[in-house]
Amino acid sequence: MVASATLRNFLEVNGERLWDTLAVSGRIGPGKSTGLSRLALTDGDKEMRDVFVRWCREAGCTVTVDPVGNIFARRAGADPRQKAVLVGSHLDTQIAGGKYDGILGVLSGLEIIRTLNDLDMTTRHPIEVVCWTNEEGVRFQPPMLGAGAFAGVHDLDWALGQTDQDGVAFGSELARIGYAGPERRDPTDIDSYFELHIEQGPVLEEEGLQVGIVTGSFTSFGAEVEFRGENAHAGPTLMRDRKDALVAAALLVAKVSEIGWNFAPKGRATCARLSISPNRYGIIADRTEVTVDVRHPDVAEAENMYRRAIDAIPGAAQLANVQASVKKQWKFGGLNFDTELVNLIRTVAAEMDVPHRHMLSAAGHDAYHVATVAPTVMIFTPCRGGVTHNENEHIEPSYTVPGVNVLLNAVVRRANS
Amino acid sequence: MVASATLRNFLEVNGERLWDTLAVSGRIGPGKSTGLSRLALTDGDKEMRDVFVRWCREAGCTVTVDPVGNIFARRAGADPRQKAVLVGSHLDTQIAGGKYDGILGVLSGLEIIRTLNDLDMTTRHPIEVVCWTNEEGVRFQPPMLGAGAFAGVHDLDWALGQTDQDGVAFGSELARIGYAGPERRDPTDIDSYFELHIEQGPVLEEEGLQVGIVTGSFTSFGAEVEFRGENAHAGPTLMRDRKDALVAAALLVAKVSEIGWNFAPKGRATCARLSISPNRYGIIADRTEVTVDVRHPDVAEAENMYRRAIDAIPGAAQLANVQASVKKQWKFGGLNFDTELVNLIRTVAAEMDVPHRHMLSAAGHDAYHVATVAPTVMIFTPCRGGVTHNENEHIEPSYTVPGVNVLLNAVVRRANS
Repeated sequence: MVASATLRNFLEVNGERLWDTLAVSGRIGPGKSTGLSRLALTDGDKEMRDVFVRWCREAGCTVTVDPVGNIFARRAGADPRQKAVLVGSHLDTQIAGGKYDGILGVLSGLEIIRTLNDLDMTTRHPIEVVCWTNEEGVRFQPPMLGAGAFAGVHDLDWALGQTDQDGVAFGSELARIGYAGPERRDPTDIDSYFELHIEQGPVLEEEGLQVGIVTGSFTSFGAEVEFRGENAHAGPTLMRDRKDALVAAALLVAKVSEIGWNFAPKGRATCARLSISPNRYGIIADRTEVTVDVRHPDVAEAENMYRRAIDAIPGAAQLANVQASVKKQWKFGGLNFDTELVNLIRTVAAEMDVPHRHMLSAAGHDAYHVATVAPTVMIFTPCRGGVTHNENEHIEPSYTVPGVNVLLNAVVRRANS
Repeated sequence: MVASATLRNFLEVNGERLWDTLAVSGRIGPGKSTGLSRLALTDGDKEMRDVFVRWCREAGCTVTVDPVGNIFARRAGADPRQKAVLVGSHLDTQIAGGKYDGILGVLSGLEIIRTLNDLDMTTRHPIEVVCWTNEEGVRFQPPMLGAGAFAGVHDLDWALGQTDQDGVAFGSELARIGYAGPERRDPTDIDSYFELHIEQGPVLEEEGLQVGIVTGSFTSFGAEVEFRGENAHAGPTLMRDRKDALVAAALLVAKVSEIGWNFAPKGRATCARLSISPNRYGIIADRTEVTVDVRHPDVAEAENMYRRAIDAIPGAAQLANVQASVKKQWKFGGLNFDTELVNLIRTVAAEMDVPHRHMLSAAGHDAYHVATVAPTVMIFTPCRGGVTHNENEHIEPSYTVPGVNVLLNAVVRRANS
């Protein structure tokens, strides 16, 4: 725990209570070993949502749920004409995920409400804790689906119609778990949005800092590349007669990794998903699909990396004697968060003597969608070794509580402005 | 059809009847488009087996089934003390397979029986048509399971306990489709084994030959390689911190393909199957498994190729910063068929003026197991473009009937010896 002496002139959350709250969440939707596997709209997600809603009601909040299942828990402000200050993140996890990614942001919001209740303090603006639906995008594509629908980036019916790999629709699963809500929220009714999140990288821990003030995001380009070859027998088929779609995919994966190395340390390049048909012993693959993902803080460098990846496709296809096509392309990130909110976080962190730095986010976050409709900022707090999307994801109160205190004081200052 | 004038002094099968028989088989267990997907011990396999058994009984044969489902249809010989001359192959297919691989060998055996019936000719030895179970190894591993169990290469209980990817046991599926037979065959009770098979390569067609006399087989080495990395987020995780099991696998696949090119045209090197965990967008892979398969007619060269493939593993693992291990290794082939039977086929083909050549098989065949217990030989007949294990697999009577006639006359000569 941070010594309260340093916080004399600032509000301070109850770190032990926050940790107890995280521990309850950490037992819902358990993973294989130490982490969680609480995929969006599964029974585990429902159970966690039910617990969260109960906690919010117990804290005196009014809870509303919108048609994509985003949960808003409102603590009334003194002036009913003021717009809400939103604080939150997501409660769903990766398939072999940790206990903190997203969850910490939502439960920090709840801890802020509880702390204000303890202090019997009313803010001018209402404060709302928000849980966005399906941030991870593991079960339903795309990621950040709930925040995207809220912000109008995705059409509601399109979002509800997205299906998981068993063909089950997002909308029907949402109804099944009881979170297809009736309350559409007007995004222009939001004063601002604050999201605290674990860094998902090693920088803060390595530099001994407790707060990353996220000024914006990396630019990320992605593509889904398909190679089409031909089935053949791995024995008698001469090398010259092969149209091997797996060889093409392998050459592209290796090339994309090489691009990542060439643009390190700032750039990252990944092929994470590769589907192969028929993927049977002894049969040359007739079809592969490779997901390409490049990211860089500098948009021009990200474009450069992406161009190199795309330019590598015909060569890979030619060597393997197959056809190639880019089935889908996307871009996200490359945005700057609200300058006023960035300045607010920096001022509060400096006044509180919490060691901090500016940084960019390289991951996707609900905040990117919310930023298109309201002033938005993110705070990063350290995680051990930068390990996330992994059952070994780990944080400590000393990593986290200083950042939550910065969040609390910044939110209250904004809500009283 | 080959003009019967050239066959004046030789027996001749009924090519039209053989083609009608192949056409019936070509409608059982249909694939997606033009081919078959008649996996071992599926309902399609059962239906084909039932039809085949009926045909054999209608041809006057005595049908027996052994405990791994191998079907033997016996046409009695004149001398009851003589051992049986076996002719056959398999009736199961690949998942997107053709209508002739294996099937032609079994139905050519049936056509020989029917032709001898037409001629009212009795041979000295009995002739048996055999259908071996699960040659393809798509549903149950390993391939050539039935022939292997017959030859004592595999323990019977072990074979019956092999499971498909849904965990269903070979033995229980065999019982379900009614082909867990009571008749154990003594492999020493076999005089000889003849297997006619489509070439699965382009050589015969390109050279305008109708018969390949298979003198032996390529040497084939295989391995199952595992790479173990760590899950991480594809965005924030620095390139230097990654342990990307998919990158290691891709580097190995690319290297294996390069080895194939370096040893072309005789050598072949393939990675056909690659399993990836968790194989989700945005998550660096923590585990991959790659199947390596190298083949060469010369055993020393095959060893050389295999050593190069295995030697490439540590480098791939190091570049990707992951752990590697070889989980399984195997070797097959590298055998010579029976010299007397090879000479018999060559003599018959030459006397019949059927253009022929010696060649090696690069694929796996039931004949390899049978060769460990009885004099064995194979005959290859052409297939279009060498395309097999593919729905477009195609043969023509002019490709095939000359080879079946060579088989008929060689089998009869052996059965009368």
